Amino acid sequence: MQQIVDFILELDKLKAVTRKIRPPGLDRYENAAEHSWQIALLAISLAPHAGAAVDLDRVVRMLLVHDIGEIDTGDTLFFVEGGWDERKAAERAAVTRIFGLLPPPQGAALLALWQEFDQEQTPEARFAHAVDRAMPVLLNLANQGQSWRDNGVSYERVVRRIAPPIQAGCPALWAYLESRLEAARQQGWFGA
Amino acid sequence: MQQIVDFILELDKLKAVTRKIRPPGLDRYENAAEHSWQIALLAISLAPHAGAAVDLDRVVRMLLVHDIGEIDTGDTLFFVEGGWDERKAAERAAVTRIFGLLPPPQGAALLALWQEFDQEQTPEARFAHAVDRAMPVLLNLANQGQSWRDNGVSYERVVRRIAPPIQAGCPALWAYLESRLEAARQQGWFGA
Repeated sequence: MQQIVDFILELDKLKAVTRKIRPPGLDRYENAAEHSWQIALLAISLAPHAGAAVDLDRVVRMLLVHDIGEIDTGDTLFFVEGGWDERKAAERAAVTRIFGLLPPPQGAALLALWQEFDQEQTPEARFAHAVDRAMPVLLNLANQGQSWRDNGVSYERVVRRIAPPIQAGCPALWAYLESRLEAARQQGWFGA
Repeated sequence: MQQIVDFILELDKLKAVTRKIRPPGLDRYENAAEHSWQIALLAISLAPHAGAAVDLDRVVRMLLVHDIGEIDTGDTLFFVEGGWDERKAAERAAVTRIFGLLPPPQGAALLALWQEFDQEQTPEARFAHAVDRAMPVLLNLANQGQSWRDNGVSYERVVRRIAPPIQAGCPALWAYLESRLEAARQQGWFGA
């Protein structure tokens, strides 16, 4: 029992990992813990639109654990170019450490979920990535492009990075976002 | 698709619902969204210790939705006495409104999960309640009883309110907490 308690208190640190977006109406940045909660519910809501048949419960668990490595590495803006191999290695070391706090069967199961998400090969991982990529876009669309403007991210860069994973995991969601993003461009909601 | 987007942006408001406890090391109150994420992972970690065989995926989904009514009502300290019927009615109205934003099949499924948690009759709901009750206790034990001291909550009141649901849903967790709480009493971590 003490191992589980040590693990869950270690996870508490994800509440301190801030992302680059402000929840609409709030004067603070989003943290990775509340983000993980929200995308789990987005996956549940979007499940009928997944690009392939998925085990939704595995998707939900994957999304709940996918950011835990950021406890050691912090969040990196998805649009940053380069440095991803080093970053992934650091995240992998972090989750090995953190899931290693649990009794081996539970720890190994969560590590396998994290790896499945990371490798982005299964239908579940692809759907999970689509959901994870789409959520900050939906928040930016509700927030007049706040994190795109703050961080100088252009329309072209957003589309180049998010269109492939969202189209692969949830085509209907991409069809919806495509026209919303075009409208946002006309509003001037992107950075240079 | 627009219905799903409206729903997920409505859920965003749970990030603004603050609870009475500060995450250890942070100078702010916990919000109900990050709390929901954390207890989903506590349930996954504790599953082998559930008091009865449970469908863990239903437990996880239940925990992800259990606080959504607080978007309209706000959080109420669990140790407040009285007013629970009115509060529950208000939360019920809130979740009916919020889950009603979704297409009917998904909305009805989430409402059913919320009700199952609320009624606390199934093994899944009982285990979910045990996990939900235990998490703030674990945080208080890591935080020298911060929310107990801030809110004048006594050892006796804590034990009277949390022992029955935790014992019912996860007896091994109660056995662990019982001695930790006794030690916390000796440290003077409770309110008057």
